[in-house]
Amino acid sequence: MRKPLMVLFFISFVLLLSSLAWTGVEDEILNLLEKQKKAWNRGDLNGYMAYYWNSEDLTFQSGDRRVKGWQALYDRYSRSYTGDKMGHLQFSDLEIRLLGEGLALVLGRWQVEVQTEKKAGVFTLVLKKFPEGWRIIHDHTS
Amino acid sequence: MRKPLMVLFFISFVLLLSSLAWTGVEDEILNLLEKQKKAWNRGDLNGYMAYYWNSEDLTFQSGDRRVKGWQALYDRYSRSYTGDKMGHLQFSDLEIRLLGEGLALVLGRWQVEVQTEKKAGVFTLVLKKFPEGWRIIHDHTS
Repeated sequence: MRKPLMVLFFISFVLLLSSLAWTGVEDEILNLLEKQKKAWNRGDLNGYMAYYWNSEDLTFQSGDRRVKGWQALYDRYSRSYTGDKMGHLQFSDLEIRLLGEGLALVLGRWQVEVQTEKKAGVFTLVLKKFPEGWRIIHDHTS
Repeated sequence: MRKPLMVLFFISFVLLLSSLAWTGVEDEILNLLEKQKKAWNRGDLNGYMAYYWNSEDLTFQSGDRRVKGWQALYDRYSRSYTGDKMGHLQFSDLEIRLLGEGLALVLGRWQVEVQTEKKAGVFTLVLKKFPEGWRIIHDHTS
């Protein structure tokens, strides 16, 4: 094979591999959000919370407040949302950006309908890949 | 030098280097926020905006809206805040986390006082290090 052709072949191969890896990450994260949404919609707060990093360093910001640690976030959710009160959650307008190896930024819109009441807003998630899979390490919801 | 002592020396050296590198990053980011705040407080919107990534991929979320691109964010700010209307900005309760090489997450509180009116909330910034320095690549403010 001539040298320029080999270089071209090598570049194409690298581009192909990186685009496959990227599709993989995007699918993994979409899958996580889908599972999280389904857990919420069956009234399963534990299932929903399973995709948050189970650490005291997990952070969540909303309104003018910061919540620190998985347990504190679980407590916050469980005060307002359990079983029937959780209603129906939908995500839309998702934008997934790979920030670095095993690090992703996800932007999106959320909507929760509880009976006739409808709440909606946007969210920012920072996700990190752990041996057990991707986990949300920071969430800002407004 | 005995082997265990050499290992200990090596570990200490690596820890020292990484802690120095980390202090460097934290200082660089605190310095950026300080310069950004000073620009705001002298009514200099261009100076304030200089620390946002000048790209169409810059994102900003607030309330239930997403703004995409540096120019769109500049336009959004300039509609509400120019010169005297910018008032006095303060940051507090900052938490800086290094996410990976050249990537940082910053959480904090903001407060703007315009004459007698006071607004406050929290923010999440994702910063990336470019050859020209750290730039905010995503901002979620509530």
